[in-house]
Formats: sequence, structure tokens, C-alpha cells
Amino acid sequence: MSFISACWRQLTEVTPVWFMRQAGRYMPEYRALRERYSLLEMIRTPELAAQVTLMPRRLGVDALILFADILLPLVPLGLDLEFVPGRGPVLAHPIRTPQDVRDLRPVTVEEDLGFVLETVRLVRGEVDGRVPLIGFAGAPFTLASYMIEGGSSRHYLRTKRFMYEYPDAWHTLMATLAQVTLDYLRAQVQAGAQAVQLFDSWVGALSPHDYRLYVLPYTRLIMEGLADLGVPRIHFATGTAGMLPLIKQAGGDVISVDWRIDLDRAWEILGDDVAVQGNLDPVALLAPRDVLARQVQTILNQAAGRAGHIFNLGHGVLPETDVGSVEFVVEMVHSARSRGEE
Amino acid sequence: MSFISACWRQLTEVTPVWFMRQAGRYMPEYRALRERYSLLEMIRTPELAAQVTLMPRRLGVDALILFADILLPLVPLGLDLEFVPGRGPVLAHPIRTPQDVRDLRPVTVEEDLGFVLETVRLVRGEVDGRVPLIGFAGAPFTLASYMIEGGSSRHYLRTKRFMYEYPDAWHTLMATLAQVTLDYLRAQVQAGAQAVQLFDSWVGALSPHDYRLYVLPYTRLIMEGLADLGVPRIHFATGTAGMLPLIKQAGGDVISVDWRIDLDRAWEILGDDVAVQGNLDPVALLAPRDVLARQVQTILNQAAGRAGHIFNLGHGVLPETDVGSVEFVVEMVHSARSRGEE
Repeated sequence: MSFISACWRQLTEVTPVWFMRQAGRYMPEYRALRERYSLLEMIRTPELAAQVTLMPRRLGVDALILFADILLPLVPLGLDLEFVPGRGPVLAHPIRTPQDVRDLRPVTVEEDLGFVLETVRLVRGEVDGRVPLIGFAGAPFTLASYMIEGGSSRHYLRTKRFMYEYPDAWHTLMATLAQVTLDYLRAQVQAGAQAVQLFDSWVGALSPHDYRLYVLPYTRLIMEGLADLGVPRIHFATGTAGMLPLIKQAGGDVISVDWRIDLDRAWEILGDDVAVQGNLDPVALLAPRDVLARQVQTILNQAAGRAGHIFNLGHGVLPETDVGSVEFVVEMVHSARSRGEE
Repeated sequence: MSFISACWRQLTEVTPVWFMRQAGRYMPEYRALRERYSLLEMIRTPELAAQVTLMPRRLGVDALILFADILLPLVPLGLDLEFVPGRGPVLAHPIRTPQDVRDLRPVTVEEDLGFVLETVRLVRGEVDGRVPLIGFAGAPFTLASYMIEGGSSRHYLRTKRFMYEYPDAWHTLMATLAQVTLDYLRAQVQAGAQAVQLFDSWVGALSPHDYRLYVLPYTRLIMEGLADLGVPRIHFATGTAGMLPLIKQAGGDVISVDWRIDLDRAWEILGDDVAVQGNLDPVALLAPRDVLARQVQTILNQAAGRAGHIFNLGHGVLPETDVGSVEFVVEMVHSARSRGEE
């Protein structure tokens, strides 16, 4: 299991590789299933979610990631979640006032999100000992941004205003989300997840100053609360090239970096005591083969065979991606070591 | 003229301050004019454009910036440009093939964009010797992204695909845009602009690898082509915390950095031989006064009174901004020096 070894910064035969959204709309078998079920139906039916989680096995990836959505905990918290085609997630009653924060309902992971834990068990039963399974959750800032904006956003205007205008309610919200997320990730590990990834996808919208003040303590609470479980913790964010030291300070055994910084430069900033995941631009998968190969090779050259590199994209696989390009990257990454030795 | 001195890294009495989009929808007098004219009418009528350029004088800012739009050169190049309320710029016939690049029309700045030069002359006639006037243009990558996407974008999928699939056409397009931009900025300076800012607003979507290969030579061509004019060249971009050395390499006497990196850290990376502009989050202007003051103070502390800091936002003033908050920042920045001496 080269993936787990690399998370612990041990030298591996080959560089492990997996992809965020490696089970998704770019796959014909996924689209076929999606024609019969809605996204939430698929996620809430453990047999279907397990089936989707397992789909990328044929790519030869070194890890599977649970098929779920970062926004699932928002439903038991009391927010109406819907996925609207072409618009993404839509929350009918977003948080706009401190009272809305007080009105959030308590979450009991086993009861409210038991279907996710069942998916973890089903997948583990299927692949045990061969490919490790990564559990995941959304990080408090990213969850809060959806809860306050009511969906995706470009400038995070409402989120930042809420943070600035209602600091007490903000801290209550973040503490609540941190606790739910911690419980949720612990339960996933107890159900069998062999690593966890915390997705703080949109935290790059913040200044380092705001990150330190409004976000870092809550991410750290989750990371520290997972430490005793002994599984690698991956900290994922995008657009954070200017605050990597803070991302590291918030915690994680592996830091996932996007493509907006060279991998070697990111690693230099992060230091030798964390593993690094990344950092191909997802759009590179839509490029002609020679361009794609050059970009993959650039990253492999920057990693320079150092222990603790996990090859991945800087964000999720795009729906327009050709499956063949993903397979090509897996093969190229896996053959890189022997090529380097020639 | 503290602004020009700071651009040349000379110590000034007070830190100069101006704001991107300091003349805009957040101002009641701007909205009143906008009710009678469309955006393009205002820009194309030098008397109106000059009137808008001059509006921020009442804020006490240390520089004015020409009222225009980065997309203006696209019209003589042959693209249909429209500003659709709620959607922003829309180009009816975006570039999709190499043939579309070959079909671009030649631009003669004096003829095709003479109204902008006339605005520069009118503003200079009005404020000569008191407040310096900044001319500006969009940088080739940012212009190309609008031309290919047909408007604003989130992932720049089409732009990157074009770049990867048609490298020859891409380089032809970038060379064309670099030449037009250089001619346009030189003409603005010859008409009286006392500094120029090159807006590469969306280049932060690229990896350093792609920036170096597909963008840097064209930005450098513009910066070097302006050198003999003896006016400060400001290089603006957002989301580039991970590739500041490349931004500097592309050129500019002043590098404008957004809020996603601490100002002192950015300056450390950039080195002592450039001035630095920034770096307040535009959303901070929507925060309560105490939160705003803390954020402004953080930036001033990081600049630490060093020669060559120009206070600005990391991007444009948002329409939701209160004019009083902008005035507050100007006063706070201007009084910082004496406060520091207390």
C-alpha cells in the first residue's frame, strides 16, 4: 500500500497516485448510473455509493476515496440541501443572522450519517488489503461558506461580512462545524477508512490575517482530535500558496497543494516533516497527450523521487475529462521510477 | 506627488493611497450618471469619462486612474463587446479556432481608441500638477481569456485548452495583444498619463509552468517597450502568491499584490528593487469600522514605513462599499506616519 507509506513519508517503489473526483461524471459507467438516480440517492444508498467508490479501480489508482459529498452534514444540521443541475448545491434557507446559528440542530453521526459509514464498511469488505480507502469531510470554513452564501460563490462576500459583523456567531458556527466534522471523520475511521482528507476547498479566498483569526483554530481542533486514531490526515485547500505555513500549522500529515505554486517550492516552504500531495492542474487532463506528459513530468522532476509525494490533481477531475488521459497519467507516474533509473 | 515618488521607492511624507475602481458604482454621483448613460457611452465620451475619472478627488486619494475598461481594444480587433447587466462583459463571437486569430483586424490606437487619449488630455488639463493620472490596459493573458471564453469564467477551461491545443495560434494571439497593448499604453503616456498599470487580473489561474511558457514573454515585451518613457509601470495580478518571482521577472517598477499573502512576505519574495502596491481585501471595506481599522493597521505594520509602499486594495472596490469606509481608509493611511512617531 504505497499510498499509506507515502503519507508517512516512507520511500515507496513507485509514486502513489489517485485523483480527487476520480469517480465522477467523466466516467461512462458513472453517467449510466446517474441517469437512473439523483446524486443524493446515489450517496444515500450504501450499495450504490460503494459501487461508485469502487469504479476507479480499473484506472490502477493507489487509493479509493469514499463517494459522498462534503455538504452532507448540513442536512442534519437543519439546512435544506439540493443539487440543482447546472447550478450545483443550493441551500434554500442559508444562514444570515446569529439566530440562524443558534437554530442549528444537534447532529448524531451514527444516526444522521449512518449510510456513509455503511458505505465505508461495504467498500472495505470488497477491497480489504488491496487498495486503501480514504474517508473525507468538508472543513469548517468551506462548509460555513456554503451555509452562508446558500451555494457556490465567487467573492464570498456574505461569508466574510458575517465573519466581520458577527464574530461571536461566527466562532459558535465554526466550533459547531469543527465538532460535527471531527465526530464524522472519527466515525468514518472507526468504520474502516484508512486515511482521511479534510477539504477546505475555498479557504484560499481569505487573507492570512483572517485565516489565522477566523479559521485556523477550528481546523487544528479537527486535526488534533484525529491524531490518536493513527491514520494519515490529508489537509486539502486551493489558492493558499501565500499561506502554506499557516495551513501546515493548522495540521495534517499530508498537505495537498494546487497547481498555482511549483511543487518543489511548496515543499520547501512546508518543510520536510509533512508529505505533499498534488499538484497537476485538472485542465491539463484535457490537453493533448504531449502537453499532458510534459506537465506530469515537470511535477515528477520537482518531487525528485523524495519520500512522501502523492501524485494528484490540485482539484477534482473535470467532467469533460477523457478516461484515457487519467489512465495515461497513472501509467506515467507508476513508470517514472524505473525511467529515472535508466 | 507622493504616489510617483513611492513608485520609484523614494521615502514620502505619507504612504500614498488610491483604489482600483475608485470611480464606480459605490459612488452616488457615479450611479446618477450611469442612470443616463450606458457604460460604453460613458467611456466613449471623453467629457463624461474625464468627469468620472475626477470623481474620487473628494476622497483625498493620491492618484487618479483613467476611467475606461480593459476590454476596449477588443472592439477594433473585431470582437463584439457588450456589457450585460448582471452578467458583465459578453463577447458575441469569441475566439474558438486558429482561424479566428488570423481574422483579427489591425488596430491603430490613435484612430480606434482616440477617445481614451482625449480623456487623458482632459483630465490632465483639469488636475495638472496636483494629482497624478494613471493610465492602464489589460494584459495579454487576461484579454485572451475574455476573447476565448466570451466573458467571465471560473476555470478558464476554454482558454487553457486553446493554449494547449493550438500553441502556434496562442502565441500569435499573445504577440498581437502585446503589440496592441504596448501601442495603447505608449499613446496614453504620450497623451499625458504619468504612470501605467497593466492588469493581468486572471493570470493567477495558471501554474507557474504555464505562466512561464505561455504568458511571461508577452508581458515582458510590454514592460520593456515602455521603459524608455520614464513613467512608473505597475504590474497588477491576483492569485499569484505562488509565482511572485515570475511576475517580477515579467517586469514592472511596482508589483501589485492581492490579500492572499502577507505584504511583508510578498515583499521579501519580490526583493528590495521593486515598489509594492496593496494589499487590502476589498471585502474588508464592508466590515465594521474596528475590523476595517485592524486590517488596515496590519498592512501598515507589515510595510513598516519602508520606502515604496503604495496602499491599495488587492482588487477593485465592490459596488456594495460605503463611500465613508473608503474615506476612512484614506485618512487612516495618511495619518499613519505621524501616529507611528507618537
